[in-house]
Amino acid sequence: MNEDRLSKQIEFLVEIDKLKTVFRNVFLVADPNRRENSAEHSWHTAMMALILEEYAQNQVDSSRLVKMMLIHDVIEVDAGDTNIYDKQASMDKAKREQRGAERIFSLLAHDQRQELFELWEEYEKGITPEAKFARALDRLIPLIHNYYTQGKRWKEDGITYEMALPVYQKIQENCPALWEFALSMINECVSKGYLPEH
Amino acid sequence: MNEDRLSKQIEFLVEIDKLKTVFRNVFLVADPNRRENSAEHSWHTAMMALILEEYAQNQVDSSRLVKMMLIHDVIEVDAGDTNIYDKQASMDKAKREQRGAERIFSLLAHDQRQELFELWEEYEKGITPEAKFARALDRLIPLIHNYYTQGKRWKEDGITYEMALPVYQKIQENCPALWEFALSMINECVSKGYLPEH
Repeated sequence: MNEDRLSKQIEFLVEIDKLKTVFRNVFLVADPNRRENSAEHSWHTAMMALILEEYAQNQVDSSRLVKMMLIHDVIEVDAGDTNIYDKQASMDKAKREQRGAERIFSLLAHDQRQELFELWEEYEKGITPEAKFARALDRLIPLIHNYYTQGKRWKEDGITYEMALPVYQKIQENCPALWEFALSMINECVSKGYLPEH
Repeated sequence: MNEDRLSKQIEFLVEIDKLKTVFRNVFLVADPNRRENSAEHSWHTAMMALILEEYAQNQVDSSRLVKMMLIHDVIEVDAGDTNIYDKQASMDKAKREQRGAERIFSLLAHDQRQELFELWEEYEKGITPEAKFARALDRLIPLIHNYYTQGKRWKEDGITYEMALPVYQKIQENCPALWEFALSMINECVSKGYLPEH
């Protein structure tokens, strides 16, 4: 037993507990009075990966995909969650997240640091089949939350169809098989008055 | 595209959002003023599986192990979280959880229902290498939370070393390689006054 290695692993696992206190710009379906945190979200997207894998455009390695979902937001312990519609905050997002990744994954011993850092970078680049599919799921889930909370978040933030469409079109780009479903959900949100057109 | 299959999958993913509102008898390390919910916990244990896999007593299939951790508490959407020290609630725990598993996994199409139900049953039985290791991690994490919150939960619930030791000894049984670490953490909790002896 390498005690130093184990204490690094425990330190990392304790550090990422903080992700439970990073709140996203999304309300829970089960309790629309509170925002979702990034730890819950990471679990939910990993569950989506398990359940929806068959819709990935190219064959994905399930194990890597689930791992990617689990760690994709760990850097928010330092960088916080960035609202996709906040242009100001989006400007230095990449830099903040890169710094977060460097610090947090460095808590681990070299081999594990390397593996998780590379997996996170792969997610950010969005080129491999796993990363493309992971990014589609990450876009799909807030749409589902908005649909089931009658667009509560959109309404509070003044988000319109015109603003939201380019955000959700990334699903079409990264996972065409789920686009038809996503688009019909968006259209239903418009027709039900959850998402104003302008 | 099988629309019925996809709507079942989405229904399941929306249903399990409720796990974010099932609160456990554990305080966050990062915010000891609030209890942890079972969705956050599921993410945290899946992260533990990724990071600590090398300590499993017998070789484990990483992918199955992580999946097991992700779904091990999904049945709590119906059954709620059961406090391990609550003898009354523990009496019908198995029955409540079995009923929960039958309902929740049945939201999915046959193949996925079967796979997740069997994986959950395997976890409950605790016989395979993956299930034994998963159960050890599930016991280890509340100990870590208690250590880092100065035994807040134990103190509030009047838990003593005598009561806690048999609970944590399951770690020794299921993952001897992590027992030395766990035991030294328990002993430190006693010596620091986080966990009274009697």
